[in-house]
Amino acid sequence: MTSAPGFDAIQAARRRISGSVRRTPVLVSEALDEELGAALYFKCENLQRAGAFKARGAFNAVLSLSPQQASRGVVTHSSGNHGAALALAARSRGIPAYVVAPRTTPQSKQQNMRRYGAQLQLCEPTLAARQERAEQIVAATGATLIHPYDNAEVMAGQGTVALELLEQVPDLNVIVCPIGGGGLISGTAVAAQGLDARMAILGAEPAGADDALRSRTAGVITAVAQPSSLADGLLATIAPSTFEVIRTRVAAVGTVTEAQIVAAMRRVWDELRILIEPSSAVPVAALLNGSLEVAGRRVGVILTGGNVDLQRLPWDATA
Amino acid sequence: MTSAPGFDAIQAARRRISGSVRRTPVLVSEALDEELGAALYFKCENLQRAGAFKARGAFNAVLSLSPQQASRGVVTHSSGNHGAALALAARSRGIPAYVVAPRTTPQSKQQNMRRYGAQLQLCEPTLAARQERAEQIVAATGATLIHPYDNAEVMAGQGTVALELLEQVPDLNVIVCPIGGGGLISGTAVAAQGLDARMAILGAEPAGADDALRSRTAGVITAVAQPSSLADGLLATIAPSTFEVIRTRVAAVGTVTEAQIVAAMRRVWDELRILIEPSSAVPVAALLNGSLEVAGRRVGVILTGGNVDLQRLPWDATA
Repeated sequence: MTSAPGFDAIQAARRRISGSVRRTPVLVSEALDEELGAALYFKCENLQRAGAFKARGAFNAVLSLSPQQASRGVVTHSSGNHGAALALAARSRGIPAYVVAPRTTPQSKQQNMRRYGAQLQLCEPTLAARQERAEQIVAATGATLIHPYDNAEVMAGQGTVALELLEQVPDLNVIVCPIGGGGLISGTAVAAQGLDARMAILGAEPAGADDALRSRTAGVITAVAQPSSLADGLLATIAPSTFEVIRTRVAAVGTVTEAQIVAAMRRVWDELRILIEPSSAVPVAALLNGSLEVAGRRVGVILTGGNVDLQRLPWDATA
Repeated sequence: MTSAPGFDAIQAARRRISGSVRRTPVLVSEALDEELGAALYFKCENLQRAGAFKARGAFNAVLSLSPQQASRGVVTHSSGNHGAALALAARSRGIPAYVVAPRTTPQSKQQNMRRYGAQLQLCEPTLAARQERAEQIVAATGATLIHPYDNAEVMAGQGTVALELLEQVPDLNVIVCPIGGGGLISGTAVAAQGLDARMAILGAEPAGADDALRSRTAGVITAVAQPSSLADGLLATIAPSTFEVIRTRVAAVGTVTEAQIVAAMRRVWDELRILIEPSSAVPVAALLNGSLEVAGRRVGVILTGGNVDLQRLPWDATA
């Protein structure tokens, strides 16, 4: 069974991937600071290679394989960004990446994956179908399954966002992350609290995919039967490994409506002039709707990805 | 008559505006570096306050006014970004900003100006109409005219981009700028060559507004009768003050077609995940079309603005 990585594993991940990923910038907005009465620092993983923080976990996992393991390739099932990141990391090592994705994956994300050399296999949009197809590929090729979040190397890689952010802005009190499967928030919590045990870690999820909040309330993992949100990177259900971190290290989880997600995307464009994907807008929306309270604090906000389909911006329908 | 600022004036501008403008990030693209055989460093002034480098010149000009001058406000005629920046700077000092803009100014730029409190006055899209209206406002209010580029404080402010870039990436050989009226490239050349006399400064303009190239060839300022380009920030004609710098300090000027501008915008989105306005894409297009040659060099590329109308992206028409 997978466990969350320790602080040392995250530091090791940082050294391992340092030549392979970008050091992403931190942006600020005078207007959002004023509105929330806080100092916000937006860590722009939307500007990461392959357009999302997922490059960190993927490179750490791929670069951790032995030459013999690596030679047989890697496989994953992913809503998109992890698949693209894994393809990029695999290509950099000259090995194949097999990616199983639901056929409902947005075209922009499918293109992004193919562009980095993924051997894409579309399947029915159920977790069972994805897992089954991935297992078939493992059996046929001997490739190593790199789970998008329930994987210690992946979580360790994701934790490097927080190490980097806290180097760029050392005196934060709070870090806010979106929660999908929980890999990012797990790595973030271990990394940030490893540097400062008092760091408050806050999570945010769409109301239509609020398994982390439900699970915290119930005390056991409680999946949402049919998760649904524009934030297609946050539909996955947390795993035992990530739930353990979310239960013990995360101070609060806020939720947001679909309209709030769209408004937050738009607001980030207006104030910061970056286009983020809906999943990235969820923490911003949770700050703006007051479900996460940060007045008077110094707050890092991890903007996780920027793989938006410019032809289908969510406000076009209503424009 | 206006003269270009000296290096000291640019250093003074940097101190004067340091609390008012953002230190913008520098991004890199592995794929573009490989394609051009160079190391490119994109200075993201599209992420500057009010969405463009113009905030630097505007704040420097407004903060240089005496209290008595300032109390009567400021006025300008601008294709958009300077107007928004001047309004922002004026608001921060609590003084009025009158902005004369052609009625053809894109809606997104008009909104941007109004949002920062500009008192917007639309006029016919000719330079004569703009200047006349601005002079009427000066006569009526006593406001100070802050010309968008033919102004020493504005040029000095624009030169702070290069000071900051060379602090972030000290060992550049080349800096590439777009040329509209020439304020940015003038400030950039004085700043960068003040730090390193061997720095090559390259300019880029749309083929439909290539007055800088024509003027260099002719040896005298040679306006384009009806400048035309998607790059609406680059339609202005260079002034004697900026031509002097462009003639003596700029190594080469490249030109680009409209299709190359659109392709460069798209390419920057694909590789860097930032949306830049057409004017910003012009230097990138000039590198990609080979009209500026930088193989083997370390190249700073100033991305000047990000005030794109998301509802009217230039590739939508052909999508």
